[in-house]
Amino acid sequence: MEALNQQLNFIIELDRLKAVQRQTTVKNDNNRFENSAEHSWHISLTAQVLSQYAVEAVNVPRVMSMLLIHDIVEIDAGDMFAFADAALQAGQEDKEIAAAKRIFGLLPPEQFETYNQLWLEFERAETADARFAKAMDRILPLLQNMKNDGGSWARHSVKKSQVIERNKFLDGLAPELWVFARQQIDLAVAKGWLIDA
Amino acid sequence: MEALNQQLNFIIELDRLKAVQRQTTVKNDNNRFENSAEHSWHISLTAQVLSQYAVEAVNVPRVMSMLLIHDIVEIDAGDMFAFADAALQAGQEDKEIAAAKRIFGLLPPEQFETYNQLWLEFERAETADARFAKAMDRILPLLQNMKNDGGSWARHSVKKSQVIERNKFLDGLAPELWVFARQQIDLAVAKGWLIDA
Repeated sequence: MEALNQQLNFIIELDRLKAVQRQTTVKNDNNRFENSAEHSWHISLTAQVLSQYAVEAVNVPRVMSMLLIHDIVEIDAGDMFAFADAALQAGQEDKEIAAAKRIFGLLPPEQFETYNQLWLEFERAETADARFAKAMDRILPLLQNMKNDGGSWARHSVKKSQVIERNKFLDGLAPELWVFARQQIDLAVAKGWLIDA
Repeated sequence: MEALNQQLNFIIELDRLKAVQRQTTVKNDNNRFENSAEHSWHISLTAQVLSQYAVEAVNVPRVMSMLLIHDIVEIDAGDMFAFADAALQAGQEDKEIAAAKRIFGLLPPEQFETYNQLWLEFERAETADARFAKAMDRILPLLQNMKNDGGSWARHSVKKSQVIERNKFLDGLAPELWVFARQQIDLAVAKGWLIDA
């Protein structure tokens, strides 16, 4: 029963990710801010639907699990805007590592190890699975911003070069998606949603 | 490019599930109603974390995919409260079948077929994977209601016998979870959150 109690505590703790706000907004729900739990659902399905575009072999169920857990650390560390300046981003990594230890640490040791390693693999982005997961995590906000009149890009005066830099992961990894992303970025500049710099 | 456009349209359409409200509330977010997108995330991870309790062999990644898509039909059909009366529930099935055709139908034919079949399998609950997925979908609101002073049970005057009937799936399928659920149901009656009938 000890393992079950630990697992149930972890499952209840997950509820808190539903209260972590991101910079993206939900167009069909009065443009409220998106939370990291529903984002994690959206991105995991996105990875499954778009998996055929990965040119390296990826383990799709692993990528999906990785994306389901990739933001759990935000329960303690909060969400950091992708284009926040370096000063704001400093310290975030340490906070997230501690958060992973605490939150995945609610689970029995073997599951703690599995999830903590999977999260670290995502963060390090050195394996094909992790790089594909990261690429998905970057292309989805692009799609959402394009449907939201520029969304978080427009609100935060983001530059074209920053979005290119962030989505470059797709180049090489999923060339067809990279072509699409580049077209969308140019369109966003033409619409005045991204600064042409 | 045709397939990619179809897939991107589907991915954008998914955003609408974030606006579908359930009867469960999110305690740590001012007790607002939970939406079906964040619920789908929570339940998919719950199934992975609790998979060891399934006594029949289940394909965990399949169960997780099933749970990620199980509520997508609600974009068109809306969420139906688990304990709604029969009159309200009549007609819901037809609405959901049409919704699956329309929404999964945004995808290329092969992916439409895969997701539509996976959703039908979940609904029919005839395979071990689908029954385990259903069992997870039923135990999670129980956990949430126990943390929310009875939550949707208390608000809707639900009876103990209704919750037992709904969670009976666990008996046989995951006996340890069934023992736990029965204890929680008795505790809920003792607290006055469920009607003792």
